[in-house]
Amino acid sequence: MIDYIRDGAEIYRQSFATIRAEADLSTLPGDLAGVAVRMIHACGMVDLVADLAWSANVVADARAALRAGAPILCDAAMVAAGVTRRRLPADNPVVCTLGDPRVPELAAELGTTRSAAALELWRDRLDGAVVAVGNAPTALFRLLEMVAAGAAKPAAVLGIPVGFIGAAESKEALAGNALGLQYLVVHGRRGGSAMTVAAINAIASEDE
Amino acid sequence: MIDYIRDGAEIYRQSFATIRAEADLSTLPGDLAGVAVRMIHACGMVDLVADLAWSANVVADARAALRAGAPILCDAAMVAAGVTRRRLPADNPVVCTLGDPRVPELAAELGTTRSAAALELWRDRLDGAVVAVGNAPTALFRLLEMVAAGAAKPAAVLGIPVGFIGAAESKEALAGNALGLQYLVVHGRRGGSAMTVAAINAIASEDE
Repeated sequence: MIDYIRDGAEIYRQSFATIRAEADLSTLPGDLAGVAVRMIHACGMVDLVADLAWSANVVADARAALRAGAPILCDAAMVAAGVTRRRLPADNPVVCTLGDPRVPELAAELGTTRSAAALELWRDRLDGAVVAVGNAPTALFRLLEMVAAGAAKPAAVLGIPVGFIGAAESKEALAGNALGLQYLVVHGRRGGSAMTVAAINAIASEDE
Repeated sequence: MIDYIRDGAEIYRQSFATIRAEADLSTLPGDLAGVAVRMIHACGMVDLVADLAWSANVVADARAALRAGAPILCDAAMVAAGVTRRRLPADNPVVCTLGDPRVPELAAELGTTRSAAALELWRDRLDGAVVAVGNAPTALFRLLEMVAAGAAKPAAVLGIPVGFIGAAESKEALAGNALGLQYLVVHGRRGGSAMTVAAINAIASEDE
């Protein structure tokens, strides 16, 4: 037998204690600190805090939206798969339209990626939704374009795409938005589905 | 309209070119370099290379196993969700048993986490499989215990759990295994489902 901790609750407790001991959470609003702890837990990097940017009401507004039954609109199947259903306050729908059979044709028509084109299928559910972009910068750019052009506004946007081409720029565009969108971003190249899921799961329930 | 690249293939091309320009891949075997590029793409960090460790035949053996129809055994639903089915060479089964209704009881019986207990349901499929642990250190520890106790050996183990308690230790245990297991790990706290999925998708097909 190898010597390691086998008690899941104890592993969580020690993990979160380690994060709170090592990460500088003092710059974060109280409701965001708990979200940041889970995001750090999902990536193993306490320096993530330095790259966080947010609007004042993002956690409160996203939480209120979820309590009111808002859907969670995800850009990637991995994001949708990671949302812990039992943490959701209102059995909220978790939606990812990327695999919809209409998407390849929409992408060709619109001259964009499938990830961006998939947002066309969000239009009816966008009003007051919680948007979680954890993969594709083009999805985040497209969301900003759609809202600027008059699409309904989501209650909050978690903009945490990852990568080398467009990721940093798309998050700067969200953080600088003049559309009144509540947002949480991880600036720079880092991001991804695991961090995004952690943020949703932390917003969905304050239980650690 | 915001100015950004909308051509998915061009985004991939520029992303991989940026990674190859910035990352030092010279220390990696040829077949692992392509895998590392995709892993870096999934996390946005070119310094990931320094934390990689591997056995000589891990990519070749995993690739051969997949071509022969081996299942991919995943510790987390997010890992299973991220595997790009059309890249798989033999329509390989992608298995995650964590959600099986028997798992909570197994975990209580075995006195371990649900993630570790879920491996009991892998036993019949372990022989020659490709194992992908992208979340739970306890799943990786448990795999080592099972094989040491006589369970069938997988063809290759991608051991890339993330976190603060047990993650680094579980990856050291895999990399130091005396069981003859072929392995790929990311040492330290970093890891997670996105990197793990990227490794599988790169092994499954050499197409960029």
